[in-house]
Amino acid sequence: MDLDAYVSERSPLVERFLENLLPSSDRPPEVLHAAMRHLVFPGGKRLRPLLAMASAEAVGATAERALPAAAAAELIHTYSLIHDDLPCMDDDAERRGRPSVHIAFGETVAVLAGDALQALAFEALARAADSHGTCAAAAIVDLATAAGASGLVGGQVDDLAFDPAKASNERVESVHERKSAALIAAAIVGGARLGGASEPQLEELGRFGREVGVAFQIADDLLDEGENEPCSSLTVLGREAARERAEMLLSRALARVEDLGSRAEVLRELARFAVRRDV
Amino acid sequence: MDLDAYVSERSPLVERFLENLLPSSDRPPEVLHAAMRHLVFPGGKRLRPLLAMASAEAVGATAERALPAAAAAELIHTYSLIHDDLPCMDDDAERRGRPSVHIAFGETVAVLAGDALQALAFEALARAADSHGTCAAAAIVDLATAAGASGLVGGQVDDLAFDPAKASNERVESVHERKSAALIAAAIVGGARLGGASEPQLEELGRFGREVGVAFQIADDLLDEGENEPCSSLTVLGREAARERAEMLLSRALARVEDLGSRAEVLRELARFAVRRDV
Repeated sequence: MDLDAYVSERSPLVERFLENLLPSSDRPPEVLHAAMRHLVFPGGKRLRPLLAMASAEAVGATAERALPAAAAAELIHTYSLIHDDLPCMDDDAERRGRPSVHIAFGETVAVLAGDALQALAFEALARAADSHGTCAAAAIVDLATAAGASGLVGGQVDDLAFDPAKASNERVESVHERKSAALIAAAIVGGARLGGASEPQLEELGRFGREVGVAFQIADDLLDEGENEPCSSLTVLGREAARERAEMLLSRALARVEDLGSRAEVLRELARFAVRRDV
Repeated sequence: MDLDAYVSERSPLVERFLENLLPSSDRPPEVLHAAMRHLVFPGGKRLRPLLAMASAEAVGATAERALPAAAAAELIHTYSLIHDDLPCMDDDAERRGRPSVHIAFGETVAVLAGDALQALAFEALARAADSHGTCAAAAIVDLATAAGASGLVGGQVDDLAFDPAKASNERVESVHERKSAALIAAAIVGGARLGGASEPQLEELGRFGREVGVAFQIADDLLDEGENEPCSSLTVLGREAARERAEMLLSRALARVEDLGSRAEVLRELARFAVRRDV
């Protein structure tokens, strides 16, 4: 199946799952529920959910099996964007061409909507334990680690405090690994866990996810040229070397999932798209 | 065992568990780890962890069995205080006689430290699945529900938007149930779950926890006399009726755990302390 066909077939599964998960904005407190939904619908590329589903399929399970991990990763991603946009962080008034949550609902509700989305992510995965047993708990450990002080949050702290005078590729990639790659890897490993993958498969998929995640973030840095971010692969490597680095990481990642065979083809296609996209 | 002896014997278990759980402030990002620890050490009364342990003991398990639920509830409580103190929420510069986290570390780090503590709470509980199986996942569902839009966060939204013109005891207690009682009940039910309680026991302990939680918050309102909070039992009921309401809820709660016998005595003592304390 080609990537476009895969995305149009699988995306409705994620949309429906998220729609059922998020509290209705007709129910009180309406403002909180509306704020929680603001950045979830419409979403972005849904890259993390698609990777989670493709990863489950790469180990022989259905996409449906991966939905709790797919949705949980998307909710963690969404909550982190809401908090990143806050005045005390990046102070961004827009996100995906629409007002960011604190502009639309105020700062107080934006902090709280992010907090509630994080709780909901773990709730969604924990509810999967009924049908998935202890692998759901293992997926929660992965996701919480990726989301917490040693992952997303720690990466954001170091990104905001990044010292241009000490910039090096190693320091930039340490932020990329935690701020972007950890959650991408957690989505991929989570999908595979719920799909019943073996421990060796999970380890290779974790490495695959971290490499694709860093390469994805390098691609982001290349697309953001002109923003002059201090913590950017473009800044420390230059355009050509950054592009080469992303391609090197991508091919190393692809080699890891080679022996999963043709059922991993969509996962490989998604990885190529994540790194080579122009949006 | 009397309550003082219980507290001095069991508290070190919680302190040690939390000490091992929280990342060291010697490791980078130091500022994040120090901010995460700021309000955890020294803590407050550790009421939620004590209730979680006493609840496990009330159903015949050891206090140690309950530690992941005890610590997780304390971390959710702590993160919510950090976010509640933010300038965009209650704007409190002090907490327990010390500078609040955003005063000591800045607003950005305070938001992020709260976010990381929430992730750590779920990580701690999910790690318990190795020894506790699927009851750890059920405890995560309980905790996430208590923490999220239908619990703590939703209660905080309604508290901040509370309209004095529409104040009624029903509205005040709806906030108390979500903002305070849900997490107290989750600690109690979580401890009992990890202690292997039966479903009927969990249901009664959940009701016990919610009643004790509301009575605890009424006690808080009575202690905060003079602050003139619109969302307060004191405001809608007056001092005498509020005190009677708290005593009524307490005795209803105590009756629920009567047939757990003498091993639930400490749990009952903790409930009495929570409602009748003068600090």
